[in-house]
Amino acid sequence: MSTPTGLLERVVDQRVSLRLKDSRELSGRLLGLDDHMNLVLDEVEETSNEGSRRLGRVLVRGSNVISLTAASGLLPKRH
Amino acid sequence: MSTPTGLLERVVDQRVSLRLKDSRELSGRLLGLDDHMNLVLDEVEETSNEGSRRLGRVLVRGSNVISLTAASGLLPKRH
Amino acid sequence: MSTPTGLLERVVDQRVSLRLKDSRELSGRLLGLDDHMNLVLDEVEETSNEGSRRLGRVLVRGSNVISLTAASGLLPKRH
Amino acid sequence: MSTPTGLLERVVDQRVSLRLKDSRELSGRLLGLDDHMNLVLDEVEETSNEGSRRLGRVLVRGSNVISLTAASGLLPKRH
Amino acid sequence: MSTPTGLLERVVDQRVSLRLKDSRELSGRLLGLDDHMNLVLDEVEETSNEGSRRLGRVLVRGSNVISLTAASGLLPKRH
Amino acid sequence: MSTPTGLLERVVDQRVSLRLKDSRELSGRLLGLDDHMNLVLDEVEETSNEGSRRLGRVLVRGSNVISLTAASGLLPKRH
Amino acid sequence: MSTPTGLLERVVDQRVSLRLKDSRELSGRLLGLDDHMNLVLDEVEETSNEGSRRLGRVLVRGSNVISLTAASGLLPKRH
Repeated sequence: MSTPTGLLERVVDQRVSLRLKDSRELSGRLLGLDDHMNLVLDEVEETSNEGSRRLGRVLVRGSNVISLTAASGLLPKRH
Repeated sequence: MSTPTGLLERVVDQRVSLRLKDSRELSGRLLGLDDHMNLVLDEVEETSNEGSRRLGRVLVRGSNVISLTAASGLLPKRH
Repeated sequence: MSTPTGLLERVVDQRVSLRLKDSRELSGRLLGLDDHMNLVLDEVEETSNEGSRRLGRVLVRGSNVISLTAASGLLPKRH
Repeated sequence: MSTPTGLLERVVDQRVSLRLKDSRELSGRLLGLDDHMNLVLDEVEETSNEGSRRLGRVLVRGSNVISLTAASGLLPKRH
Repeated sequence: MSTPTGLLERVVDQRVSLRLKDSRELSGRLLGLDDHMNLVLDEVEETSNEGSRRLGRVLVRGSNVISLTAASGLLPKRH
Repeated sequence: MSTPTGLLERVVDQRVSLRLKDSRELSGRLLGLDDHMNLVLDEVEETSNEGSRRLGRVLVRGSNVISLTAASGLLPKRH
Repeated sequence: MSTPTGLLERVVDQRVSLRLKDSRELSGRLLGLDDHMNLVLDEVEETSNEGSRRLGRVLVRGSNVISLTAASGLLPKRH
């Protein structure tokens, strides 16, 4: 079984996409996280219904995160 | 009596459907969970009023989950 | 005095109706619960302003529950 | 000084009215409560902007309660 | 320095006005309170955009309170 | 580094402005506070989109505060 | 791995931009923070859909913060 935090730690340094409660989506490289699922992302691109913009490095409070998708690190394990 | 967490652990590796507070529905194979009901799903398909899309592997924060339905693992036990 | 959790445990295996914060109503047989009032229901029928549908077995996060009504188990005790 | 929980315990078995966050009002006889102010009411009548209906025995999660009024048990003490 | 709870205890038995999150205002005599700022008021008058009505004795869950004003007990101390 | 609570204690007795979640702004002299950032203000003036009014002494629950500005006490320290 | 709080402490004294839940954006120099991510900013400029205004020194409750961007301190470390 993959636990959520184990999974998150496995995708550090990889690109992830976040869906936030204010309906924005952020994609960027995951630099770090803590127990509250506060996240630090780099090379962030924000997409909302007002279009896209580049934000650089961003800290996101975990309580605003709905879900997180990772491009590769979350692929099924091949044993 | 089936407890909610006992029930969730029994459906790991099976397909489940989630209803989220932002009115999206996600269906996918449950890969793992933790005590906060944070969930990791694989082969996820998202359905919202904007249509459907495939998301791959997704981590969902438990606080956004309203309810979870499982296709088979949640069927009544036959003793 | 009947405590809320004592009352809930008394209606395990009986049919209950839930009103959820997203304005859905779920009715089904209560299979189990935990201290957070997370509930597992079987043979669930969902009613919303979009109509009714059958959902099978469903886990509901307690934080989404507004109120619960039970058909019989909640009847006044006759000593 | 009357504490809120002392007050609630004094009105067990009496009729109370609840105002809920979803703008419904419930009136019924208070059967029991716990530390989270989860309440069990009997002979409940629900009033909302869709009219009134009888609900029988109802468990209400305390976090949905805004305020509670009691017809008599909350009258000033006459020593 | 006047702490908030010290202040509240000083106005027990005096008239206070509450602003609630559902945009109602309640005014009444403060009978008691607890650590969650749950309040018991007597001789309550409710004012909302639907007009005014008398409610008698009311218990208000603290989490619904935005702010509280007291007519006299909150006046600056004259030492 | 100035911590938030250290900062708040430094502005006791000075005028502050609060922005609340219900979009009101309150300005007044800060009389006291506690660990939940519950605040007591004196000589309060409330401004909302319905105009201004004087409220006297007010207790504000910290959970309703978005941000606080202080006229002078928050100026940079000159060592 | 950069943890969120480690990152925040590294940008004390630098300019940051905050996005708040009430859809305002604040930019200013970060003076201090605590474990709840309550923040003190100086030389603050507020931007909302009503335009911009200068606010001076501001304390922001962490629970209202969605995300934080820092101009330079959050740049990738060059070892």
